[in-house]
Amino acid sequence: MNFSYSEKVVTLQKKVINFMEEYVYPNEKVYQEQLKQQKTRWSDIPPIMDELKEKAKENGLWNLFLPESEYGAGLTNLEYAPLCEIMGRSVIGPEVFNCNAPDTGNMEVLVRYGTEIQKKQWLEPLLAGEIRSCFSMTEPDVASSDATNINTSIRRDGDEFVINGRKWWSSGAGDPRCKIAIVMGKNDPTAPSYEQQSMILVPLDTPGVKIERLLPVFGYDDAPHGHAEIVYENVRVPAENILWEEGKGFAIAQGRLGPGRIHHCMRLIGLAERALEDLSKRVLSRTAFGKKIAEQGVVQEWIADSRIEIEQARLLTLKAAYKMDTVGNKEAKTEIAMIKVVAPNMALRVLDRAIQAFGAAGVSDDFNLAYHWANARTLRLADGPDEVHRRQIAKLELRKYQSADLAAIH
Amino acid sequence: MNFSYSEKVVTLQKKVINFMEEYVYPNEKVYQEQLKQQKTRWSDIPPIMDELKEKAKENGLWNLFLPESEYGAGLTNLEYAPLCEIMGRSVIGPEVFNCNAPDTGNMEVLVRYGTEIQKKQWLEPLLAGEIRSCFSMTEPDVASSDATNINTSIRRDGDEFVINGRKWWSSGAGDPRCKIAIVMGKNDPTAPSYEQQSMILVPLDTPGVKIERLLPVFGYDDAPHGHAEIVYENVRVPAENILWEEGKGFAIAQGRLGPGRIHHCMRLIGLAERALEDLSKRVLSRTAFGKKIAEQGVVQEWIADSRIEIEQARLLTLKAAYKMDTVGNKEAKTEIAMIKVVAPNMALRVLDRAIQAFGAAGVSDDFNLAYHWANARTLRLADGPDEVHRRQIAKLELRKYQSADLAAIH
Amino acid sequence: MNFSYSEKVVTLQKKVINFMEEYVYPNEKVYQEQLKQQKTRWSDIPPIMDELKEKAKENGLWNLFLPESEYGAGLTNLEYAPLCEIMGRSVIGPEVFNCNAPDTGNMEVLVRYGTEIQKKQWLEPLLAGEIRSCFSMTEPDVASSDATNINTSIRRDGDEFVINGRKWWSSGAGDPRCKIAIVMGKNDPTAPSYEQQSMILVPLDTPGVKIERLLPVFGYDDAPHGHAEIVYENVRVPAENILWEEGKGFAIAQGRLGPGRIHHCMRLIGLAERALEDLSKRVLSRTAFGKKIAEQGVVQEWIADSRIEIEQARLLTLKAAYKMDTVGNKEAKTEIAMIKVVAPNMALRVLDRAIQAFGAAGVSDDFNLAYHWANARTLRLADGPDEVHRRQIAKLELRKYQSADLAAIH
Amino acid sequence: MNFSYSEKVVTLQKKVINFMEEYVYPNEKVYQEQLKQQKTRWSDIPPIMDELKEKAKENGLWNLFLPESEYGAGLTNLEYAPLCEIMGRSVIGPEVFNCNAPDTGNMEVLVRYGTEIQKKQWLEPLLAGEIRSCFSMTEPDVASSDATNINTSIRRDGDEFVINGRKWWSSGAGDPRCKIAIVMGKNDPTAPSYEQQSMILVPLDTPGVKIERLLPVFGYDDAPHGHAEIVYENVRVPAENILWEEGKGFAIAQGRLGPGRIHHCMRLIGLAERALEDLSKRVLSRTAFGKKIAEQGVVQEWIADSRIEIEQARLLTLKAAYKMDTVGNKEAKTEIAMIKVVAPNMALRVLDRAIQAFGAAGVSDDFNLAYHWANARTLRLADGPDEVHRRQIAKLELRKYQSADLAAIH
Repeated sequence: MNFSYSEKVVTLQKKVINFMEEYVYPNEKVYQEQLKQQKTRWSDIPPIMDELKEKAKENGLWNLFLPESEYGAGLTNLEYAPLCEIMGRSVIGPEVFNCNAPDTGNMEVLVRYGTEIQKKQWLEPLLAGEIRSCFSMTEPDVASSDATNINTSIRRDGDEFVINGRKWWSSGAGDPRCKIAIVMGKNDPTAPSYEQQSMILVPLDTPGVKIERLLPVFGYDDAPHGHAEIVYENVRVPAENILWEEGKGFAIAQGRLGPGRIHHCMRLIGLAERALEDLSKRVLSRTAFGKKIAEQGVVQEWIADSRIEIEQARLLTLKAAYKMDTVGNKEAKTEIAMIKVVAPNMALRVLDRAIQAFGAAGVSDDFNLAYHWANARTLRLADGPDEVHRRQIAKLELRKYQSADLAAIH
Repeated sequence: MNFSYSEKVVTLQKKVINFMEEYVYPNEKVYQEQLKQQKTRWSDIPPIMDELKEKAKENGLWNLFLPESEYGAGLTNLEYAPLCEIMGRSVIGPEVFNCNAPDTGNMEVLVRYGTEIQKKQWLEPLLAGEIRSCFSMTEPDVASSDATNINTSIRRDGDEFVINGRKWWSSGAGDPRCKIAIVMGKNDPTAPSYEQQSMILVPLDTPGVKIERLLPVFGYDDAPHGHAEIVYENVRVPAENILWEEGKGFAIAQGRLGPGRIHHCMRLIGLAERALEDLSKRVLSRTAFGKKIAEQGVVQEWIADSRIEIEQARLLTLKAAYKMDTVGNKEAKTEIAMIKVVAPNMALRVLDRAIQAFGAAGVSDDFNLAYHWANARTLRLADGPDEVHRRQIAKLELRKYQSADLAAIH
Repeated sequence: MNFSYSEKVVTLQKKVINFMEEYVYPNEKVYQEQLKQQKTRWSDIPPIMDELKEKAKENGLWNLFLPESEYGAGLTNLEYAPLCEIMGRSVIGPEVFNCNAPDTGNMEVLVRYGTEIQKKQWLEPLLAGEIRSCFSMTEPDVASSDATNINTSIRRDGDEFVINGRKWWSSGAGDPRCKIAIVMGKNDPTAPSYEQQSMILVPLDTPGVKIERLLPVFGYDDAPHGHAEIVYENVRVPAENILWEEGKGFAIAQGRLGPGRIHHCMRLIGLAERALEDLSKRVLSRTAFGKKIAEQGVVQEWIADSRIEIEQARLLTLKAAYKMDTVGNKEAKTEIAMIKVVAPNMALRVLDRAIQAFGAAGVSDDFNLAYHWANARTLRLADGPDEVHRRQIAKLELRKYQSADLAAIH
Repeated sequence: MNFSYSEKVVTLQKKVINFMEEYVYPNEKVYQEQLKQQKTRWSDIPPIMDELKEKAKENGLWNLFLPESEYGAGLTNLEYAPLCEIMGRSVIGPEVFNCNAPDTGNMEVLVRYGTEIQKKQWLEPLLAGEIRSCFSMTEPDVASSDATNINTSIRRDGDEFVINGRKWWSSGAGDPRCKIAIVMGKNDPTAPSYEQQSMILVPLDTPGVKIERLLPVFGYDDAPHGHAEIVYENVRVPAENILWEEGKGFAIAQGRLGPGRIHHCMRLIGLAERALEDLSKRVLSRTAFGKKIAEQGVVQEWIADSRIEIEQARLLTLKAAYKMDTVGNKEAKTEIAMIKVVAPNMALRVLDRAIQAFGAAGVSDDFNLAYHWANARTLRLADGPDEVHRRQIAKLELRKYQSADLAAIH
């Protein structure tokens, strides 16, 4: 297990750090300002974003996420991890480098399971940062933590598939550039539990696709990205839009979620590092009860625990990345499940301590803490709630003893 | 320590419960809808509010909060507790009964420390629910957890006081009906630490008072209430606007914060009860992995821990109320500090479990959980952060041993 | 819900406090020394114990625990609570007042379910403090947290019952004065689940009763009390030794465990109070890094959290006692389950903080902290593990909504 | 940062695992039995120990701990970590391989700072496993968490040093083979704070050295190892017994504690792994409430959290080892402080869950859980309490910002 960074990665890391300092952090407020000045928060993308994307391309900091693919930068997951972490320090960061969710996960799916035509039509403009995509899986009417509950139907009808169902939390669908959804549904409710589902490509301008509303997260609209509730009503797409083949929805989901999850974790580590940095600076700069807040023992415990938790989360994430690279996403599933539990909870604790240290300023928008917190909170639910991952980890642990002599506890 | 409810209280409790069921809960969405339909979210109060207030007055459910005063309903803190808890179940509840923060705290100040003229001018319209008020204490430039840090100056100049300073988190100042601020500042920086401060009444239409912006809380604007940043620039008010007398700001703050804090705690218990109710219904109504979510052991632990924590927080709050009633707010300071730590943290845990049980729906606005959570989060900071209260509790505990034989640990 | 103490209780409380100060605390070390000087730690009871018991009788502090019975002091559970708490501050305290486990629980059983002959033979010498008793329920071979797992057989054979089985954690059976066991077993494995069990009185000198060993708890032998593993091999007792009647074992257990559990909780509150007192004195008397340890913010948080947790646990225990007194043990089952979870966990946290504050001295026997901790740790298991109680609390909570409209989450 | 194991390490790991399975685990009870059969628990070492040591030597599994030294096996800290972890799974394990505390730490001191004569006399028999040693630092009369509090005097008198003081928790001094103590004391109370202390070699048979008693840990005597309280009364040793030179006591302590601490952490990870294994087997083999305990969601959360916490602690320990190997113990101090907080707390949580899963069996001596727990509990205090390490971590974190622009929170 070698976590050393190659010279290539060290160079890229420096470049990403410098880019963030020079271009991203100073433009976070600009982005928000431009967003406010538009007709609505959904009507267009703040122009600064395209400028930043151009800069990132010029600097060779583009599509760094794709391992094992001719399309990407040729980085392994382990190599991508320290870069993704830095991008994740800013909410606008990942998009600048074309490394944002859910597009990276969707692009991974297209690389792995897409036909040449599908790649031409959707992967290429996604890689170019020209369009964006969403992932339509969760449904409001069922406990979607159990994916077998999913109800949307994808029914074959001649050369077409007909899609009917209601989805929500299709994140990114609020973006005017979002052109394509990957929709998960059931094509055959009579098949074995994990072969009933399919995934299919649905252009958002297909008749019958209706974005009913954009859902807030703790009061934030996440514009212009947005979390959409979408109704698919007799939506017809050509049969060749199916991904891989019918009945493979679950298999694709398993493949997709590994990289998607680890990217989230990397970004959360970045968010947490930034929060700890903010916390440290704040408590060094303010005085209460006759001494710097940084000298309060309680605050020092917050700082120490934060440092400890971040370090541990990062190391476990690197281990997961290493396993994905060396034995594959499937074999790495315990590690992926572990970081999916660890990283959001760690980030929430660090952010909460930072909020407390900032006082009321911490819950406002003068700093990023509250927004980052809300963001991190969704990740205890998105891509599977903590409880489902913990159960999975326990089952894999218990499996080790399935043929053990249980009486032999020494 | 008698926590039994008198017949009067039992009757009022039933009335408040029924009122909430009949009028308040069904109008929460109406209120939000009316708010959206106005020109801006700050331009007016949703008309349903006045209708509900009239109903509450008609039902004799008005100004129930004021103990020991001819103005109120003659209830003790202990008697008010179970009523306040029920009102607190809805964010619009307290205002309906004219029992909302920060007005109740401000009215308590006026009852205790106001002159007859001050009462006539400000207390009476507040009691009538005609105007609203704000409390201007926290400042953006200093750690306001240490009130001696407060910088705003209140300088005597002939028959007037001149106020200069910047305040924020003056909650309620966004409300078009808000007419009066109680401002805390320093009149004499050379006096002993706790005698430098004064409180003064400043009508919001006084020249030099400028609301610069309204601060969000985790993405929520809390309109039309709002959390204002206010600049006081050479604001002149008549000398008789001083509360009590110069140098008494700290003493008033101590007196004011007791009731204000316990009211917050009562409401938080109500919020938590409602969240536990919501959680329970939700997990009974959804199925995952082949059984009702309510049958999952992990979820049952959430429910049990929530019930345990709510019960304990309520009992401690009742004890604090009982002590305030029997030995006074000052003697009850340990208990008040304890519930100020306990109640928000308890509510946050219960709400967080409920959010987790609701899945992604929990972070949206389809239910109240996320908004209530944001609300409760501010209460780990407002009226003193947890850390300051814990320190106070510890000091009072340690004081018990100041003349003890420390070697005699038996 | 009236938690006020009557004059009678206040007087008793003072008497118990004084008695503890004068006689019990100073003799804790004496008791341990006398124990060491005996041939074995199990051969006899340190003579100081009988002296103290005589003193307690003389002072009218004897058998204070029995509510609703001509045998006791006529105190309700609520009245007994503050007295039991003080007794519980010392591990030798409860026995001094004849209020120790498991005898009080066993005496309650005999009062409620015993025949006149049984009372004469066993209850009276127990009340007189002449003999002691044990409760033989838990079995080593099954998960006894589920009482239906219990395997010991109690088979009718003519005028006798024949008992066969292996029990452990029959606490108190190491005591040379222990004369009688209440044994739980199955008389009819074909009956409905909760009617298969019986309880029966088994004198320890009956042929076939064999104490195989005395189990340690975290290295402590708890001599001369002791936790016995007992084999019952073809043990024959007269049929009239049955308690209540065949098949009532479960019902008696339910009745017995309520009072037994709440007594444990009261004592744990006493232990925790004493630990907090010790912690406070210790940190006031030692200096590190240039200031008293009591001035460290982290230590102050320990003290504050301890005070908060003790207060809450005590109030909940009082509420449980109040409900037992007013609506009966069965109706109070939620409250009893709640305190059974709360009190041991609270005490463990407080004790752990005290241990940490004492440094290495805390894990030794120079102070009582480590021993008390071990003691408290068993109470997360004895009389049902936390997890079983939490499940029970959740089920009772969910039952509130069994006929509710689950869609109506307002 | 390369955590991959070389072939050499993989081979050693297999050998240690096999050795533990074949010789150590099966002899744990034998060791305890032999200890009981001796005249006293302190009179001799159970003979099985020497047999096992011979076996280990024969297998080339001896003194694996010493990095950078001709005396050891030539393993780095990183290479030793996985081996030490496995040894640590058994309390008797480390001694079998001559890798036990406090001898490894003391041997490191002698290797680094010892003169040739000192090495000849003490290091060589220690390396041979013929004698044992203790470390006499902590004092009962002061808060030893602050090492500047240490009071013992080491006064020069001609060609000798005269030592006066009282020490306790000199672990290992109970062992009849323990021949030498490293004593820390003050030679010059007027020097700068961190140059007042010296360390000196004191043979235990020197006149004036008196072991007053052996301290228990949660009821365990840890015989024949033992934790001694030692009085040094006018103890005279030759001047050449000083380690390094006068005034270097603190510097040596810093150097010594790094390796000592990380070894403890490695062993704790082993203890925790074994506890999780035991827990898993136990819950797979027992049934309650109609299903295997392993199927309970709550128990599954325990397993998952344990796996997560163990993995993270191990990775952080490896990182610390890696830094010690590559940049030195001093540069690795943040990482060492972090694992010193993480590992004991992690092990305590895992062990506590295992105890809970075992029910009452868990607190007894039928399994190792309670004893391991007590052992782990001391390690939140030994070599510095958690709070001191956290403070150190915070200070190092805050130091990063000492020349930062504190207003620039982006």
